[in-house]
Amino acid sequence: MYNIGVDLGGTNIAVGLVDKEYNIIVKRSLPTRAERPAEAIVDDIAALCREVCSEGGCALSDIATVGVATPGTANGRTGVVEYANNLPFRDFPLARLLSEKLDKATVKIENDANAAALGEAVAGAAKGTDISVMITLGTGVGGGIIIDGKVYSGFNSAGGELGHMVIEHGGVPCSCGRRGCWEAYSSATALIRMTKEKLEECEKNGVETAMSKAERISGRTACDAMRAGDKAAKEVYDTYIAYLATGLANIINIFQPQVISLGGGISNEGQSLIDDLLPLIAKEQYGGGDKPNSTKIRIAQLKNDAGIIGAAAL
Amino acid sequence: MYNIGVDLGGTNIAVGLVDKEYNIIVKRSLPTRAERPAEAIVDDIAALCREVCSEGGCALSDIATVGVATPGTANGRTGVVEYANNLPFRDFPLARLLSEKLDKATVKIENDANAAALGEAVAGAAKGTDISVMITLGTGVGGGIIIDGKVYSGFNSAGGELGHMVIEHGGVPCSCGRRGCWEAYSSATALIRMTKEKLEECEKNGVETAMSKAERISGRTACDAMRAGDKAAKEVYDTYIAYLATGLANIINIFQPQVISLGGGISNEGQSLIDDLLPLIAKEQYGGGDKPNSTKIRIAQLKNDAGIIGAAAL
Repeated sequence: MYNIGVDLGGTNIAVGLVDKEYNIIVKRSLPTRAERPAEAIVDDIAALCREVCSEGGCALSDIATVGVATPGTANGRTGVVEYANNLPFRDFPLARLLSEKLDKATVKIENDANAAALGEAVAGAAKGTDISVMITLGTGVGGGIIIDGKVYSGFNSAGGELGHMVIEHGGVPCSCGRRGCWEAYSSATALIRMTKEKLEECEKNGVETAMSKAERISGRTACDAMRAGDKAAKEVYDTYIAYLATGLANIINIFQPQVISLGGGISNEGQSLIDDLLPLIAKEQYGGGDKPNSTKIRIAQLKNDAGIIGAAAL
Repeated sequence: MYNIGVDLGGTNIAVGLVDKEYNIIVKRSLPTRAERPAEAIVDDIAALCREVCSEGGCALSDIATVGVATPGTANGRTGVVEYANNLPFRDFPLARLLSEKLDKATVKIENDANAAALGEAVAGAAKGTDISVMITLGTGVGGGIIIDGKVYSGFNSAGGELGHMVIEHGGVPCSCGRRGCWEAYSSATALIRMTKEKLEECEKNGVETAMSKAERISGRTACDAMRAGDKAAKEVYDTYIAYLATGLANIINIFQPQVISLGGGISNEGQSLIDDLLPLIAKEQYGGGDKPNSTKIRIAQLKNDAGIIGAAAL
């Protein structure tokens, strides 16, 4: 018996045939072309599902579940994507339609950040735990909460928006309409903003910084310059890390998960990022963070496969 | 069959005989006298348990469970109170000791804020829900999270510290050692601090305010003066409400519970407090707050009985 995991994104549709040990046996992908009608996208998902089955030498009837990780608010109970801002889905019955196109296969859906968290919980950085949280530090800050091995998303499937927890009351405007969200301080986008602000400040004050040599300001600019010994870059990095630690300590105080795994572009900084975070988090968490039963912070392991594996585990 | 609920506090021990519909049949209490050895406190708890049984006309063998709501970190799995700052409990095997003194009755323990949340979930403001959060706005800000009808407290029983979620990075020092915790802005203690600061400011600037007529500054001083039309008091109240709304919107974005119930001294402001909070929360929550499946904010109903009823429901 296999499962199929579908990672539906604004750019690509990736589909994997996944075995019971969460190995991806076959993987295929197509561009999403999100400007198309929703049903055309579902047609391509169905075609990819049939293709991975055929390549993997199995029939659709050998598939226990087809899981779909989708952007937006995905209601796991009804199978309806209520809203997605980068796909043409508005109260769209994705699970039912895909099931119809796949000979009535069992189809389950989940928000993509939640599915990635489930992937890390079953086969990645949080493998073997009951309670874990995954944070994706990318364009935004995504969150996925796993409790007792299942995705937690509240009574209406809209929970787990950890990036939209305000950590600076009245602070920087966030894309969601609030001010001071964690996302506005700890996303790659926020790091780029902080880097640009520091560059302007350096320029204004005639201070030299290695960051000004970057061809294009990215989330890595400040990190790289800091590691090369640049003082202004270290200030940017320290500010960024302090906000990141504040949000992570909040999550620990609230959830006390066994593991928090960090994914997304910023997590490519690897273990040194965690080493820099740990002393701040230890100091900030309720009751101290140096006990054997404290939350572990780890870099996520599954990278681009987290969505497929998590979807297959739904 | 009955349960017994024990609400153990720093000042009083209250014990109730509770029926299956969560009615308190008999209630008895004694002063805690927290300076005594831990075992003497357990002796009194046991005596009160026997007393409510006898008064209620039942035997200890008619009791399904004795639940104890205790301050501090209570490990529900081991029955050990790991730490309490206002009781002589350090890794104290409360459940085992109490069971021994009660003819081997089944004893379960839980943190008091969590037990109160469970009380509200089974018999109070969140009755009939699967997912709810209770916030106690008192000396501190306590939190209790109920998921699928059970207390959620993380893998190590230390979770649910919602008051120690930073909402103002680098802000006001909190008793826990962090800066900018929700508790430091939304507890009654915080409201009193804000009131005193505004009084000083008024005095310094020669501004008249009704708040200066209060004999003693309490959490009610600003609320009462504001309702009497005092401008300075309204500024204090508006600031307080804004921080409170920020924390509540965070909880909604994270948990999407069916109900958040508000307890503690500040909740005596009643429905007008909620009416003032709702527009702020609606604006701040992810995806908007005016949908039929949005979280309801309610005043907690069980008041001082929440701990007994929640403990009895463990």
